[in-house]
Amino acid sequence: MSTQLTPEHFATLAQQAVEVPSWAYGNSGTRFKVFSTPGTPRDPFEKIADAAEVHRLTGLAPAVALHIPWDLVDDYAALRTHAENLGVSLGTVNSNTFQDEDYKFGALTHVDPAIRRKAIDHHLRCIDVMDATGSRDLKIWLADGSNYPGQVDMRGRQDRLQESLQEVYARLSGEQRLVLEYKFFEPAFYHTDVPDWGTSYAQVSALGERAMVCLDTGHHAPGTNIEFIVMQLLRLGKLGAFDFNSRFYADDDLIVGAADPFQLFRIIAEVVRGGGLNNPDVAFMLDQCHNIEEKIPGQIRSVLNVQEMTARALLLDRDALAAAEASGDVLGANAVFMDAFYTDVRPALAEWRESRGLPADPMAAYAASGYQQRINAERVGGAQASWGA
Amino acid sequence: MSTQLTPEHFATLAQQAVEVPSWAYGNSGTRFKVFSTPGTPRDPFEKIADAAEVHRLTGLAPAVALHIPWDLVDDYAALRTHAENLGVSLGTVNSNTFQDEDYKFGALTHVDPAIRRKAIDHHLRCIDVMDATGSRDLKIWLADGSNYPGQVDMRGRQDRLQESLQEVYARLSGEQRLVLEYKFFEPAFYHTDVPDWGTSYAQVSALGERAMVCLDTGHHAPGTNIEFIVMQLLRLGKLGAFDFNSRFYADDDLIVGAADPFQLFRIIAEVVRGGGLNNPDVAFMLDQCHNIEEKIPGQIRSVLNVQEMTARALLLDRDALAAAEASGDVLGANAVFMDAFYTDVRPALAEWRESRGLPADPMAAYAASGYQQRINAERVGGAQASWGA
Amino acid sequence: MSTQLTPEHFATLAQQAVEVPSWAYGNSGTRFKVFSTPGTPRDPFEKIADAAEVHRLTGLAPAVALHIPWDLVDDYAALRTHAENLGVSLGTVNSNTFQDEDYKFGALTHVDPAIRRKAIDHHLRCIDVMDATGSRDLKIWLADGSNYPGQVDMRGRQDRLQESLQEVYARLSGEQRLVLEYKFFEPAFYHTDVPDWGTSYAQVSALGERAMVCLDTGHHAPGTNIEFIVMQLLRLGKLGAFDFNSRFYADDDLIVGAADPFQLFRIIAEVVRGGGLNNPDVAFMLDQCHNIEEKIPGQIRSVLNVQEMTARALLLDRDALAAAEASGDVLGANAVFMDAFYTDVRPALAEWRESRGLPADPMAAYAASGYQQRINAERVGGAQASWGA
Amino acid sequence: MSTQLTPEHFATLAQQAVEVPSWAYGNSGTRFKVFSTPGTPRDPFEKIADAAEVHRLTGLAPAVALHIPWDLVDDYAALRTHAENLGVSLGTVNSNTFQDEDYKFGALTHVDPAIRRKAIDHHLRCIDVMDATGSRDLKIWLADGSNYPGQVDMRGRQDRLQESLQEVYARLSGEQRLVLEYKFFEPAFYHTDVPDWGTSYAQVSALGERAMVCLDTGHHAPGTNIEFIVMQLLRLGKLGAFDFNSRFYADDDLIVGAADPFQLFRIIAEVVRGGGLNNPDVAFMLDQCHNIEEKIPGQIRSVLNVQEMTARALLLDRDALAAAEASGDVLGANAVFMDAFYTDVRPALAEWRESRGLPADPMAAYAASGYQQRINAERVGGAQASWGA
Repeated sequence: MSTQLTPEHFATLAQQAVEVPSWAYGNSGTRFKVFSTPGTPRDPFEKIADAAEVHRLTGLAPAVALHIPWDLVDDYAALRTHAENLGVSLGTVNSNTFQDEDYKFGALTHVDPAIRRKAIDHHLRCIDVMDATGSRDLKIWLADGSNYPGQVDMRGRQDRLQESLQEVYARLSGEQRLVLEYKFFEPAFYHTDVPDWGTSYAQVSALGERAMVCLDTGHHAPGTNIEFIVMQLLRLGKLGAFDFNSRFYADDDLIVGAADPFQLFRIIAEVVRGGGLNNPDVAFMLDQCHNIEEKIPGQIRSVLNVQEMTARALLLDRDALAAAEASGDVLGANAVFMDAFYTDVRPALAEWRESRGLPADPMAAYAASGYQQRINAERVGGAQASWGA
Repeated sequence: MSTQLTPEHFATLAQQAVEVPSWAYGNSGTRFKVFSTPGTPRDPFEKIADAAEVHRLTGLAPAVALHIPWDLVDDYAALRTHAENLGVSLGTVNSNTFQDEDYKFGALTHVDPAIRRKAIDHHLRCIDVMDATGSRDLKIWLADGSNYPGQVDMRGRQDRLQESLQEVYARLSGEQRLVLEYKFFEPAFYHTDVPDWGTSYAQVSALGERAMVCLDTGHHAPGTNIEFIVMQLLRLGKLGAFDFNSRFYADDDLIVGAADPFQLFRIIAEVVRGGGLNNPDVAFMLDQCHNIEEKIPGQIRSVLNVQEMTARALLLDRDALAAAEASGDVLGANAVFMDAFYTDVRPALAEWRESRGLPADPMAAYAASGYQQRINAERVGGAQASWGA
Repeated sequence: MSTQLTPEHFATLAQQAVEVPSWAYGNSGTRFKVFSTPGTPRDPFEKIADAAEVHRLTGLAPAVALHIPWDLVDDYAALRTHAENLGVSLGTVNSNTFQDEDYKFGALTHVDPAIRRKAIDHHLRCIDVMDATGSRDLKIWLADGSNYPGQVDMRGRQDRLQESLQEVYARLSGEQRLVLEYKFFEPAFYHTDVPDWGTSYAQVSALGERAMVCLDTGHHAPGTNIEFIVMQLLRLGKLGAFDFNSRFYADDDLIVGAADPFQLFRIIAEVVRGGGLNNPDVAFMLDQCHNIEEKIPGQIRSVLNVQEMTARALLLDRDALAAAEASGDVLGANAVFMDAFYTDVRPALAEWRESRGLPADPMAAYAASGYQQRINAERVGGAQASWGA
Repeated sequence: MSTQLTPEHFATLAQQAVEVPSWAYGNSGTRFKVFSTPGTPRDPFEKIADAAEVHRLTGLAPAVALHIPWDLVDDYAALRTHAENLGVSLGTVNSNTFQDEDYKFGALTHVDPAIRRKAIDHHLRCIDVMDATGSRDLKIWLADGSNYPGQVDMRGRQDRLQESLQEVYARLSGEQRLVLEYKFFEPAFYHTDVPDWGTSYAQVSALGERAMVCLDTGHHAPGTNIEFIVMQLLRLGKLGAFDFNSRFYADDDLIVGAADPFQLFRIIAEVVRGGGLNNPDVAFMLDQCHNIEEKIPGQIRSVLNVQEMTARALLLDRDALAAAEASGDVLGANAVFMDAFYTDVRPALAEWRESRGLPADPMAAYAASGYQQRINAERVGGAQASWGA
């Protein structure tokens, strides 16, 4: 079996876009320690500059996701212009309801109406930001949950979640969407209010058509077949977005494709199969923490990993797969599948990048660009952007 | 805090019924070995006799679930009369599409229409059995899945599953229901066609009101919060049945409550909270394999475990829980919860059993009854009932 | 089966001591947020005062573990006198090599000799502290590891770990011991340099007799049979200490016994079986994070949980267990085991506490004591003790 | 980075040998069903013929492991001659103590001395077989364990295990070795008597120099870093053998490299790093179950997977890795590592195979050989070889 990328494949790859998160450029860490890095941005404008550098070198990252309040600015029009001048746009707005003392026991699910009100209002303000930035998606990830059995009434929280979301959803206009992320555990340890795709699906289905599920590849129990969920959500018409990253144990937020490249291949193969590739309904986003590695190259590596794996997935000979399945030829089908995965698409992609005026090796190009040295020198003083405690 | 079972609690407990599976009385084992046991039934009539013994001693197990074709008989009216004479009824009918060579690559999802047809027809025949036995529920657990990535097109199988189920569902009449079980993995190792509650929920929701989800407590990924799923399915009105058992690692099918008694407590507490206790819509069933322990006492132990844990769950002071939650008193709420769990309800239950003409200690009563010695002597010759390879 | 605590049991329970960690009284949290609490200590002296309150009310917590540099003071003699005046002693010294920028890529295993030197020197200074405090044990938990495959040479690190430990071990004197903790993952996500008991065992065995393994109950893979490891380490004479806590998913550091009380029962039953109870060679310690619950009551609850579960474990009828095993009576053996677990020892313990001049209900006694209100009022201003980023 | 296989690499690859298990050619399955396959061997002679076919087409599988009593024959000299005539030798002898009714509660650990005696004697007879076949290694995998807490005294079993092994070990002569496999769980569900590498290491270390650990890649908890264990056992001089296979969830026994090819790469990279490649002390074996795929091609695929991944591991630029580690260049190190993994070694290997007189594509060569058709026709009647219940 010989497999090669065709012009048609390249045409598909040329359309690919991966939204990068503003917070990836700030410092992040574990509960034990956040290490600081020279050149780390000190405000949203510097984060967007870094994100634009990723796009400049890869052509893959035309939009930057924001996190509110981390990316609160006085003038979103200015931020938007700043982004556009650098060749990128402002993307998904992420609401943050996990870093205020009031949210210790929940936000949209809180038993106290006053705190629930505050959390809903925060989401309404996020939609104001979306109106200003032109962002389409409001992404909601909730830290809501509990640590001890008996601590809360899970059922009451589920009902209140629906009520809160309805109010938020009602505020959306035009093409705007609400995307609800689920997460198996952390920061809550006993129960999470949106722990699995089924819960997110049931919640957004009760809202309406512009409410969708966000699948973060790191938010599942050990052994979960994630590509099955991709398939199912595409089938049900409810896959709204991906948060890409990778994990060995928990929600490690490592570089996408780093921990289990074959899993990433299977996921993207299922996206292609279900019509989710380059489909505006299905946003591709990164959600990673570069705790110990350099941040900008970490993001470049990540979008390249998505691109390379998409190229491999495009190589899949679906007719051969179907024929093998029809005849019960397990090893034949698996051979077709592995052949695409094991094909080294990197040289062809490098050549193609050059043909489009991009560096053949964006990692090397970044290292040679002097950008990192410049920001290391310039960004001295002030507080580095960060998240976590 | 002092907690005691009240007359009201006992009135609730008196209504409790746990369906026992006919196959629990036959030999079962692992892929490595099925050990044989003296006295093992050789036909469905003997299985029902054993199940009736469990009910006679506990008052908890008035119905026996069947498995077709394991429990195929020529005359279901005779089987039904046999059961009724022994004081029990015939319960849920389980379809078996995993032990025929044709089902190597699936049943209701199979890519070959002829095999799909065969599997659908098998289910229609199961409904014929239900008509004859008076059973209400058709329970479907599918072994369908694949072992290697690329082996099958998961999406096509999901669509065919819905088509197959629609045909089966259409055949139901009156009060009959279809209950679809999900399972994380095994016997398929790469993908399972109904791997999680979300898939079962999406599939049965597309069928209609009399299609429900079956939750087997052993069919989840490590770390899954099962009581959350119980809560959610009750909230969505789609929890049709439990298959109770327990597990340390995979689908171990151990005695319910044996591996993690506190988990069983939390599950039943959520059943009570959501109105699922003694609710005809939510069938309580066992699904266990007594590989190395004695089978009839194993079943007695199991229904007693469910009863004891239900008693503890009934003790929960929900007003105190709500007050603690309202004031953010984590330790107070947990104390209320643990107090119910740690209360030793066994002496009160023993006394209450006696007051109802049941043995205070059904395990001891079975040992003293001579039943096991009698069947050991009688059931010689013939093939012992079994399942598995 | 009737089971009751005897005078002999109480004599055993009277000897029980659980070391509490100074850091449990400071603020802790997740990577997302550390919530602050009124009354949180601002220095080691205030931490010890809180720990002493736990001991005053329970009689169970006569020693306080320190963490260096968190508990650095100028005058350890003064700290020791402070502790003794409050009725407690200074216990295990924990070295901290995970919160300095230099340790980003490791400490005792670091590829750079200068950083390794710094880490070794930190441990030597910890032994200086031990000399001053009279502490017996140096407990080493290493955050060393890597996040990405290929990032480091794991073998080289393992060899350097042994070299570093040898230098630390050589500095111990008299009764002093080195106790090496293992941890499955976190904060490193790909590999941890001491990930399992086997590695800790191999490392300490190469050091000598006064080097032992520390077992933290939250540091294992899902499904691990922890009591088996307890049994094995006791058998090999290398179980030096416990860090007690509990977990649902990862290293949640919840209150011991909160997540799986039956597991705690099994662990303590194996400690008793192997001669590890009230054995000075096996230190009982807590290592928990009270992220959302009150800290002092959280510690009181924890030591009571250990005491209650020890009482249950003492009830185990080992002759009956042995007889059941000898006759292959699986259900009989399990019944004996569960009977001890399900026995409600709480009333007898409450009575016994009172007989010893302790409050029957230490949680209620703390709530009534006014201590929390006093520290809330007094500890205003200054920086609350904390850990993490 | 351009990476190519060199003559030196090919010289290394030419020495590689992977022992294949006789049982892989018989029918196997799950506890639910063992599917039968045309052409399945009916006796050890036919199994060896099939194994020889794998070696003929790949040059990789010169030895066949036996399982006693599955491969009991009257005349081992005849079996040996049969093998040698077909170009292969008889390899490791595996003892089987899990399919006799007597072993329901254990074998080498059993509480009953008579059954322990029987199990020890079985191992002594296995060594007799080794004397006759010229096999070097006795591999012991024990199904010993328990299903319910309290069922057995784990400590007593551990001590008896050591006693039993000592008697077996004492019977070895010359170059013969004892290799002890560990397994996380199954067929026992609560505890396994040799559950982890630490236990196997402690047990074999107490025996002597010719007792080693066997690492089965499917026998670990979810998330376990297996290559770390490879590194550690090589460092401790106790890695005696591999049982290769792959898994998604439990001990799935799938084709090696099928579930997580990157994990296989990391494992072999660590073997190379630690001097375990083509080292007679470290036997490479397969232990797989071809439940639904064709068996002989399944084995061909497996040995090719090992070969291909070894080629990739040989490509690792260790100087570049070391330089990146020394400078804390996380992304640089990971890039070197991934570059070797992503390099497509298949064309070069195909060419090299042809240069050695082997088929470029052994899978295609088998399909074209007519062997399968011949055995399908010939092996009619008699009982197919199988294992399991």
